[in-house]
Amino acid sequence: MTQPPVTQPPVTQPPRNPDFDAAVRASFARQGAMRTLAAAITRLVPGECEITMPFAPGVAQQHGYFHGGVVGMLGDSAGGYAGLSLWPAGADVVTVEYKVNFVAPAKGAFLRATGRVLRTGRTLSVVQVAVVALDQGREVPCAFMQQTLMAVPPP
Amino acid sequence: MTQPPVTQPPVTQPPRNPDFDAAVRASFARQGAMRTLAAAITRLVPGECEITMPFAPGVAQQHGYFHGGVVGMLGDSAGGYAGLSLWPAGADVVTVEYKVNFVAPAKGAFLRATGRVLRTGRTLSVVQVAVVALDQGREVPCAFMQQTLMAVPPP
Amino acid sequence: MTQPPVTQPPVTQPPRNPDFDAAVRASFARQGAMRTLAAAITRLVPGECEITMPFAPGVAQQHGYFHGGVVGMLGDSAGGYAGLSLWPAGADVVTVEYKVNFVAPAKGAFLRATGRVLRTGRTLSVVQVAVVALDQGREVPCAFMQQTLMAVPPP
Amino acid sequence: MTQPPVTQPPVTQPPRNPDFDAAVRASFARQGAMRTLAAAITRLVPGECEITMPFAPGVAQQHGYFHGGVVGMLGDSAGGYAGLSLWPAGADVVTVEYKVNFVAPAKGAFLRATGRVLRTGRTLSVVQVAVVALDQGREVPCAFMQQTLMAVPPP
Repeated sequence: MTQPPVTQPPVTQPPRNPDFDAAVRASFARQGAMRTLAAAITRLVPGECEITMPFAPGVAQQHGYFHGGVVGMLGDSAGGYAGLSLWPAGADVVTVEYKVNFVAPAKGAFLRATGRVLRTGRTLSVVQVAVVALDQGREVPCAFMQQTLMAVPPP
Repeated sequence: MTQPPVTQPPVTQPPRNPDFDAAVRASFARQGAMRTLAAAITRLVPGECEITMPFAPGVAQQHGYFHGGVVGMLGDSAGGYAGLSLWPAGADVVTVEYKVNFVAPAKGAFLRATGRVLRTGRTLSVVQVAVVALDQGREVPCAFMQQTLMAVPPP
Repeated sequence: MTQPPVTQPPVTQPPRNPDFDAAVRASFARQGAMRTLAAAITRLVPGECEITMPFAPGVAQQHGYFHGGVVGMLGDSAGGYAGLSLWPAGADVVTVEYKVNFVAPAKGAFLRATGRVLRTGRTLSVVQVAVVALDQGREVPCAFMQQTLMAVPPP
Repeated sequence: MTQPPVTQPPVTQPPRNPDFDAAVRASFARQGAMRTLAAAITRLVPGECEITMPFAPGVAQQHGYFHGGVVGMLGDSAGGYAGLSLWPAGADVVTVEYKVNFVAPAKGAFLRATGRVLRTGRTLSVVQVAVVALDQGREVPCAFMQQTLMAVPPP
């Protein structure tokens, strides 16, 4: 039995950076690794970011599913941009650490990671991420992450 | 800004052990460490367990709040019993590992941990736990955990 | 098969606080929770802290061994004070997060946690902790932790 | 200040699978994701596996260093194959979970992950992984991981 992914009440506080959307997308566009995965931001609101990528043989593990490292990588990005969306203009974000549990094979045509900020402070944020595989119209939860981010102030 | 603790849709599947309530409470009663904390199970449904304890000087850290280790301990128990509630009769539960993020000082008259099973398998379960401090009528989220449990079959 | 606990080359850099020993012991003495466990600092050098506690029925889980939460609690303290020993005078330390794997029942007359700093920065430190149970003269590794600490500057 | 990566005493017990080397390399060769990273096994002994990959724009984050997700991915593989090297012939390995701390930017011409088994059981193994960037002849530790693996018995 697998539970549906984590649901959170929406973040009600307005973002500190009114141009958060442009800031997140500009940072995302500079990541060669996200291009390698053919990943795209498919949803972005303050405190929440969803990133989706297609399956390809170049992201597979030994059984032909999405590699666990790719699952972690997509989740790390979704969480990081969820956090960045709530920080002041000019700030950058680095991942301090994350922890990921794999609960099912990541088998499907697409992989989708959704990061939601649990708490954002002046220096650190804590984020939860759920990763699902989209397999023949079904969403199969395959990983749950918990992540710590640090804001890097503008230079 | 702190988000409300994790909310999950209720577990809809019936427990595999019809006497899950008695099994959880009997195991809890055998834990000297829970008595030391004066902790009590304050809610128990299949896949979810809430444990509450009062503040006392003997559980404090250097500033007079609940010690982080006590926060982790209460959360570990709430998560473990959430997991046990979904396993077959006679099974026991051991914690494989957990990870906890502390997001605010655990300051208040009571500490409450709520564990919810994200996924339960034949051998392993993955659980999320939120710990809140109850301070003058307010619930202040102070820690978020993610935990892996292993079922120990009956001897 | 269980490996001996983690060994690290000694920290060669001098502590930034020449009175680190007094600072750590003063903070430890203020923790009611450590008194409850009858825990004592049994070794302290810059970047490394060892804390030992005796078994008692009040720290047991349901099988009469040390409770996993107590294992985590002792490890959290050993890691935190390892980190504090390398920070400037007047600084305080808070645990951002930790992750603990339990690898064997914590069965024995004493429990001993050793924290060693892997990296210390201006704001954050990363620490590894090994916890062993001392059972009839043998050291049995029972938990491995990885922890993130944040320095709180003097007021 | 950064400590050298984790060092462990060598694993003294012989592997349960005399053909562990061939088993690990055959599984590695089936991973499209490792080919995408141009990663290679550069050292393999029972209980320890080292994997190395070169830098390329396609694995970069927004500042032109190795992406944190790639660091996690390489570490996950090194840890997983360290674990597999100690399991019986025909067994497969899945990652239950891992936790990774990033301690420095992964800047350099090569990235190298070394996984070492702390404890191997019948069902689960616990592994530590250190990831270093090789930058102009220097080894810069950039991440530390702790990982749980599960053995999947032969079909």
